[in-house]
Amino acid sequence: MSDRYDIAIVGSGPAGLSAAINAKIRNKDIIVFGSRDFSAKLIKAPKINNYLGFYNVTGEKLKEEFENHIKAMDISIKYERINAVYAIGDYFVLMVNEKMYEATSIILATGVEYTKPLKGEEEFLGKGVGYCATCDAPLYKGKTVAIVGYNDDAEEDTNFVNELASKTYYIPMYNGNYKLKDNIEIIKDKPIEIKGDMFVNKLLLKNCTIETDGVFILKDSVPPGQLVPGLEIEDGHIKTDRNMNTNIPGCFAAGDCVGKPYQYIKSAGEGQIASLSAVSYIDSLKNSRK
Amino acid sequence: MSDRYDIAIVGSGPAGLSAAINAKIRNKDIIVFGSRDFSAKLIKAPKINNYLGFYNVTGEKLKEEFENHIKAMDISIKYERINAVYAIGDYFVLMVNEKMYEATSIILATGVEYTKPLKGEEEFLGKGVGYCATCDAPLYKGKTVAIVGYNDDAEEDTNFVNELASKTYYIPMYNGNYKLKDNIEIIKDKPIEIKGDMFVNKLLLKNCTIETDGVFILKDSVPPGQLVPGLEIEDGHIKTDRNMNTNIPGCFAAGDCVGKPYQYIKSAGEGQIASLSAVSYIDSLKNSRK
Ligand SMILES: Cc1cc2nc3c(=O)[nH]c(=O)nc-3n(C[C@H](O)[C@H](O)[C@H](O)COP(=O)(O)OP(=O)(O)OC[C@H]3O[C@@H](n4cnc5c(N)ncnc54)[C@H](O)[C@@H]3O)c2cc1C
Ligand SMILES: Cc1cc2nc3c(=O)[nH]c(=O)nc-3n(C[C@H](O)[C@H](O)[C@H](O)COP(=O)(O)OP(=O)(O)OC[C@H]3O[C@@H](n4cnc5c(N)ncnc54)[C@H](O)[C@@H]3O)c2cc1C
Repeated sequence: MSDRYDIAIVGSGPAGLSAAINAKIRNKDIIVFGSRDFSAKLIKAPKINNYLGFYNVTGEKLKEEFENHIKAMDISIKYERINAVYAIGDYFVLMVNEKMYEATSIILATGVEYTKPLKGEEEFLGKGVGYCATCDAPLYKGKTVAIVGYNDDAEEDTNFVNELASKTYYIPMYNGNYKLKDNIEIIKDKPIEIKGDMFVNKLLLKNCTIETDGVFILKDSVPPGQLVPGLEIEDGHIKTDRNMNTNIPGCFAAGDCVGKPYQYIKSAGEGQIASLSAVSYIDSLKNSRK
Repeated sequence: MSDRYDIAIVGSGPAGLSAAINAKIRNKDIIVFGSRDFSAKLIKAPKINNYLGFYNVTGEKLKEEFENHIKAMDISIKYERINAVYAIGDYFVLMVNEKMYEATSIILATGVEYTKPLKGEEEFLGKGVGYCATCDAPLYKGKTVAIVGYNDDAEEDTNFVNELASKTYYIPMYNGNYKLKDNIEIIKDKPIEIKGDMFVNKLLLKNCTIETDGVFILKDSVPPGQLVPGLEIEDGHIKTDRNMNTNIPGCFAAGDCVGKPYQYIKSAGEGQIASLSAVSYIDSLKNSRK
């Protein structure tokens, strides 16, 4: 069985990193899940003027400063995507495909997706539309699957699904050199609509139509309500109070995923609050066990 | 009559400065009130590790980075202390002694006082105890006044009161070279308790007792409920919602003054939110006038 961390932080944008440094200062045993770039929304920003202390910097530069900060504090990021989080009594289990991690508390700092859902996506969610290809792959044994991938993380998942599915289509929403098994059909086209009766049976693209039993949409982030079953969502964001508590004890949230304005230093400030709340939560559990 | 600013920001700590840069980016006409050092709590910090992007910096260094930022954006700070703020229909009047400023909206970023109130201070508030010497000076014409000053800003106020009072005592809580009129008696001692019957009649210090009609306590910040009559306070902090709205339309707040945790980046994040809320408020007023 895996070790149990004090705090697992899901996301490596400003919210997650700020949570990490604050938890580390409080001597908590942490694990941070995220990506090599920290946050696509950070490195892509051409010019940032509104993060107090840094004027007229590129996103790349700010990322570098964040990196120096966490490295100096000996914090590293696990480049893995969490597919699901389960609250199990007084701890949490975080799933990375078939691998699992345990933590006493979690901080969700997963950001938001700016891309709009496809027509039909919400209607067929759970009826052939899914966000975790590896979780649901067994449902598609011997069937046809189309996967819309927003980044190269999706490629590994696609190869996995392909081992079970009879036919796999991959629709990449980015340019790259797609490391995919030979029998996967790559379609460079723009998805428009998902259609079906009770279940999905078609994916309409701009220039063609695919007959398929399932459509996976693998974006940078999974909708938080999907990620953590039972999590309360309000107007598309994780509902929290001023201390960044969610409705699940021990589960905190910060940054874009809890609401507007979508901004770096707002996210970092909330990451700090979430972290200090998680620290109090853990300490109160330890004290009540004494 | 003075010009009317879009946003007046009261306080030049991380909350006020973050509010200022964000409002300026949105092209609002702003005025920022504060102190030369920005924040005593900033320059006094020996080592800061938890402001994402800056590791192991002194408060002085962080202050310097903030200064570079606001200077580059052509934001300056008015070194004046606001004694009172009045909501007048759809704008606010901010008082600096007898001088006044007008603004369509305000952001309170005044920090908190860590120093405990004196024994008797709360009991005699408004009955001889006051926080705004220049506002209440006329009440002490021909009387005796004791002023407990926490910083050199208090000296100017003391000289002003002294023009009306028959006898003025000054009890400095800091070292300096007190620029005070000759007839003001400086007492270097520690205030312990304020006593009286219906009204104040004595200030007890560690080594002596002063017979006095009034005691002014001039700290770094005025309690916000005193500063803005009608402002809703909860557990000693300004009550706000997630968008940093207070109970008074057009009045926003951020930083330590709205609650714990008392931290820099939490304050800066809230300053940003308050600022963007103020910007929306102003824009909605302008649109409704069209
Ligand atoms: C082009 C552009 C320019 C911008 N410019 C500015 C600007 O100038 N100023 C400003 O203040 N804001 C700006 N923003 C907004 C800013 O980027 C966001 O508000 C900020 O990044 C939010 O931080 P966050 O930590 O909440 O989330 P994000 O930065 O989105 O980070 C979330 C992280 O979590 C990871 N993640 C998500 N789900 C999982 C999972 N299941 N497992 C593991 N990791 C996961 C993601 O991969 C990502 O790394 C800009 C945004 C864009 C797109
Ligand atoms: C010694 C020390 C070390 C600290 N170390 C850390 C640390 O390492 N990390 C961390 O995150 N936090 C630290 N803190 C806490 C941090 O200083 C505060 O949380 C932060 O300064 C709050 O910012 P603020 O903008 O809300 O208020 P403040 O920084 O207190 O600023 C308020 C400003 O408003 C001005 N003001 C108040 N009233 C008026 C008025 N009526 N008119 C005009 N101006 C007014 C004040 O003069 C002041 O300049 C430390 C505090 C201290 C004292």
